[in-house]
Amino acid sequence: MSKAPLFERIAIIGIGLIGSSLAHATRVNGLAGHIAGHDADADIRERAAALGLVDSMHADIADAVANADLVIAATPVGACGDVARAISDHLAPGTIVTDVGSVKGAVIEAMAPHMPDGVHLVPGHPVAGTEHSGPEAGFAELFRDRFSILTPPAGANEEAVARLAEFWRAMGSDVEIMDAEHHDRVLAITSHLPHLIAFTIVETASELETELEAKSRDDDVVTTREVIKYSAGGFRDFTRIAASDPTMWRDVFLLNKDAVLEMLGRFTEDLTAMQRAIRHDDGDALFELFTRTRNVRRGVIEAGQAGRFQYTENGD
Amino acid sequence: MSKAPLFERIAIIGIGLIGSSLAHATRVNGLAGHIAGHDADADIRERAAALGLVDSMHADIADAVANADLVIAATPVGACGDVARAISDHLAPGTIVTDVGSVKGAVIEAMAPHMPDGVHLVPGHPVAGTEHSGPEAGFAELFRDRFSILTPPAGANEEAVARLAEFWRAMGSDVEIMDAEHHDRVLAITSHLPHLIAFTIVETASELETELEAKSRDDDVVTTREVIKYSAGGFRDFTRIAASDPTMWRDVFLLNKDAVLEMLGRFTEDLTAMQRAIRHDDGDALFELFTRTRNVRRGVIEAGQAGRFQYTENGD
Repeated sequence: MSKAPLFERIAIIGIGLIGSSLAHATRVNGLAGHIAGHDADADIRERAAALGLVDSMHADIADAVANADLVIAATPVGACGDVARAISDHLAPGTIVTDVGSVKGAVIEAMAPHMPDGVHLVPGHPVAGTEHSGPEAGFAELFRDRFSILTPPAGANEEAVARLAEFWRAMGSDVEIMDAEHHDRVLAITSHLPHLIAFTIVETASELETELEAKSRDDDVVTTREVIKYSAGGFRDFTRIAASDPTMWRDVFLLNKDAVLEMLGRFTEDLTAMQRAIRHDDGDALFELFTRTRNVRRGVIEAGQAGRFQYTENGD
Repeated sequence: MSKAPLFERIAIIGIGLIGSSLAHATRVNGLAGHIAGHDADADIRERAAALGLVDSMHADIADAVANADLVIAATPVGACGDVARAISDHLAPGTIVTDVGSVKGAVIEAMAPHMPDGVHLVPGHPVAGTEHSGPEAGFAELFRDRFSILTPPAGANEEAVARLAEFWRAMGSDVEIMDAEHHDRVLAITSHLPHLIAFTIVETASELETELEAKSRDDDVVTTREVIKYSAGGFRDFTRIAASDPTMWRDVFLLNKDAVLEMLGRFTEDLTAMQRAIRHDDGDALFELFTRTRNVRRGVIEAGQAGRFQYTENGD
């Protein structure tokens, strides 16, 4: 006799990379009696249904969350408030409501006011993803050996937190609990600033072509075609990061503004110091710094966070 | 009856990642009758000899290049001038001398004055590498499907250029010819600036721990341990790039100073615009920019430069 699934009915709101991966992982690990889905976009609903990702797909979000004991908002963080408002009147007491966004303070602020009594809001964030988007991009293994961070507000129901933690562990994640504000500062440096910088350098490189159009061909201009052609020297890794979902990242930067601007300020100071060292031919300072940064990589490898596929190429 | 190898004797000066990869690739593809090696570091010479990378290993650089018809300086670019000076009196007429450095203008400036009449200096740069260093890091496939750029000075011997191009093609590379100044500008944006930024952000993240030491534990500080733990959100990709050889990179930044500072200036402008868009909640500007950068990734994939191992994980 097999064990009863962890949840009777899970409702996944938003069927992108994370939503579809959750559907796969829930099914593969037998974590729900029924998986209901909703997406605001009719085309996505149709594609997700065609893929058989969920047991029932609903055009009306109220139908998706009806009788669910776990509701997961897997939308861009900017949409979480609207989701909370739309489901508010249709949640049964005891339901756990969570999300998967990369910003937690703003999500709590947007969702908490709409939670009825007896419904448990436990925001969460699986630190996992790829540069691909949409219902076709998901896979069951996405969360395996990755951290999932839960940020329960003060006074959150302990049983609800424990049950949600068990859900993530069953999909292979390590679960960490921290407060929302700290989460947002940690992610600002480990994820948001790296993405911001990757988007920016890809933009800088793309602008070179516009120059070509504006100038005479006699100038020594570097074209985007050349940038792409010789991208194995380092640039290509940034293009991968900068290919992530535009809506998701717009929301992240706007909703974690303070922490992102703080980390960006620190980075800019360090970059200016680097610029000064180059300008003044301070080779010792550069050498010392590059030796220090090398050791950080060792830490990442030792922590098992270097990526599942060993990516041996880089370039010089 | 097998064809005669392309070169009778190749001398590889500097047995790091690139030197050892050249040794492997030369041997696997039967490109030399004899492979001679030299490294200024006795420990490296010993390790390379123990690995059987070369047919003869020489403590004296003059012995390594004696009777060679191809000499490859595979040292950090800052050492190329010293290499040229040391081998100058020991080169036979007709010998091709090349290098593998990521900066070409400075290499020509440092090496050309030491080349005797009848010796052909044809600087080169395989746009390939990994974050690993040393004689153990090399492998024969490193140059396959990567671009190797040759930057022959004006009036270079055409036959020598063609023969060196054939050598690179035989190891699987696509060969491109361009002038040194243009090479240095292209690499400044495709490789040098990305590395500079990666080194800097890893430095920014590492400094957070120092803060922890300085402050009381009650503050909401982010520790390096946390940065490493949650690095799957994007940061880890930068740590890989920032793990590259410190000597090599110090030399690159100092010797391609003008182009690096120019590209860095452009990047800083774009970063400031990004900062301003975030501060003023200009979501439309961010969304539009992120949509543009996404298309560049498509170009990299279509150009076949996205990396040999598909690396599907990124993070949010």
